[in-house]
Amino acid sequence: MIVTIIGLGLIGGSIAIDLKKSGYADKIIGVDHSQINGEFAKQIGFVDEIQTLQDSISESQLIILAIPADGAVKVLPEILNRIDEQVVTDVCSTKGPLKEVIKNHPKRDQVVLAHPMAGTEFSGPWAAKQGLFDGKACILCDLEENNGDAVQTVIELYENLNMRLLEMGSEEHDVHAAYVSHISHISSFALALTVLEKEKDEKRIFDLASGGFDSTVRLAKSNADMWSPIFRQNKENILQVLDTYIEELNDFKKAIEFDDSERVHQKIKEANRIKKVLS
Amino acid sequence: MIVTIIGLGLIGGSIAIDLKKSGYADKIIGVDHSQINGEFAKQIGFVDEIQTLQDSISESQLIILAIPADGAVKVLPEILNRIDEQVVTDVCSTKGPLKEVIKNHPKRDQVVLAHPMAGTEFSGPWAAKQGLFDGKACILCDLEENNGDAVQTVIELYENLNMRLLEMGSEEHDVHAAYVSHISHISSFALALTVLEKEKDEKRIFDLASGGFDSTVRLAKSNADMWSPIFRQNKENILQVLDTYIEELNDFKKAIEFDDSERVHQKIKEANRIKKVLS
Repeated sequence: MIVTIIGLGLIGGSIAIDLKKSGYADKIIGVDHSQINGEFAKQIGFVDEIQTLQDSISESQLIILAIPADGAVKVLPEILNRIDEQVVTDVCSTKGPLKEVIKNHPKRDQVVLAHPMAGTEFSGPWAAKQGLFDGKACILCDLEENNGDAVQTVIELYENLNMRLLEMGSEEHDVHAAYVSHISHISSFALALTVLEKEKDEKRIFDLASGGFDSTVRLAKSNADMWSPIFRQNKENILQVLDTYIEELNDFKKAIEFDDSERVHQKIKEANRIKKVLS
Repeated sequence: MIVTIIGLGLIGGSIAIDLKKSGYADKIIGVDHSQINGEFAKQIGFVDEIQTLQDSISESQLIILAIPADGAVKVLPEILNRIDEQVVTDVCSTKGPLKEVIKNHPKRDQVVLAHPMAGTEFSGPWAAKQGLFDGKACILCDLEENNGDAVQTVIELYENLNMRLLEMGSEEHDVHAAYVSHISHISSFALALTVLEKEKDEKRIFDLASGGFDSTVRLAKSNADMWSPIFRQNKENILQVLDTYIEELNDFKKAIEFDDSERVHQKIKEANRIKKVLS
């Protein structure tokens, strides 16, 4: 299989590493608007060649679009305009806008919308690593829009990355993503800003940050170019979750303010139910 | 050195393990109101004996109070009423109320208020582990209230646990603790509640939770008996931080609501400064 990966960042680079290792890809062509990223990926051996978008499409059988969500809605229709029999997939954290821009395209059935739910707070090809996707969930969306060959190709792709496959509609995906991923990031960004604002003497934060703080703000290191478009694209769902989250915080605040320790205790016990959900 | 540890949970148990290993303690006496905790600690070898509070005090040279903050403010004055030359220290996450209840006690100079900033989201003696404190910060408070022997004993204690020692006043400690520890826990509890409320089908959360969500809600597994008193005791500081945190979230919300991607991008970039602070 000849695979083109467009976008050689954390996700694209990590996919390249594992597809080479598993033998799924006979050849990987890399495309990146950053010359530095491209050269790094080639030198380190993630990809066999760096090509232009146009050249890479004609040579490959599978095209993986691994760029931020705002770029993806622009580039995906362009790719569809150029393909013949190729299968295309993406890795975006939001699905609604992508679904919308391709809905009437004659090649729609060749694009499998996918969200491999893995990542770290780091970005760029230098952050790419082997086994990033191992055992994680990958959501395939709106498969009823696809032809069987496209679905089969993309299932094999993600099985090669050793992911657990799930299927749902784009709308359902975007709601769930707001709850289990997007709100975590906003929560963490806001926490970092709160603490940075207060603790002007940054050395002290470092001195005092125990494991707890560190894990809660880990996501606040995440890349602005990636996350800003996600928040815009999944706006409606995120605003709804944010409202609930702020309500929960206000409820905590009120309980603490009125010395209602019983209520605080009860809320913590309820929150503890997350233990049963996450191992 | 004969050491008494009152409270054989995660913190008390982990202290016992490391003090035995380092040879600092020749004998460790355990005190716990739960017979099960005590028997477990003795059987597994954390402690040499289980005694009553009264008996343990007369036999030991150093007493470590490792119970939740609400219990500590009651038990600490009782301990002071019974000691002769013994040195006493605690491990509480809030310092103001403890300082207050002992301020006029004739043995005040023998109590060194300390906060070893380490922990996990688990609790009980079965959660205790070796090396929990290794390299973490320990704050010693109000040392001007102490006699030199007491300070020396407690410094040696925490150096034996391989902690980095810092010194500050109780008031300053409680402000910093609100920022770098207490707010992280509230943020995490509220996030867990938000997601649990929405995702009634809990299996789906498990399927979808990627590394990000998992780390952000990790602290939501924390023990209600421990955290509810902390929020009450550090109420004023926590309410102030909560206000700032909710303002930050509302600011994010407004920027997303009005499609102000530039503002969102800028806020994320500012939050990213946490990278420089935490490695």
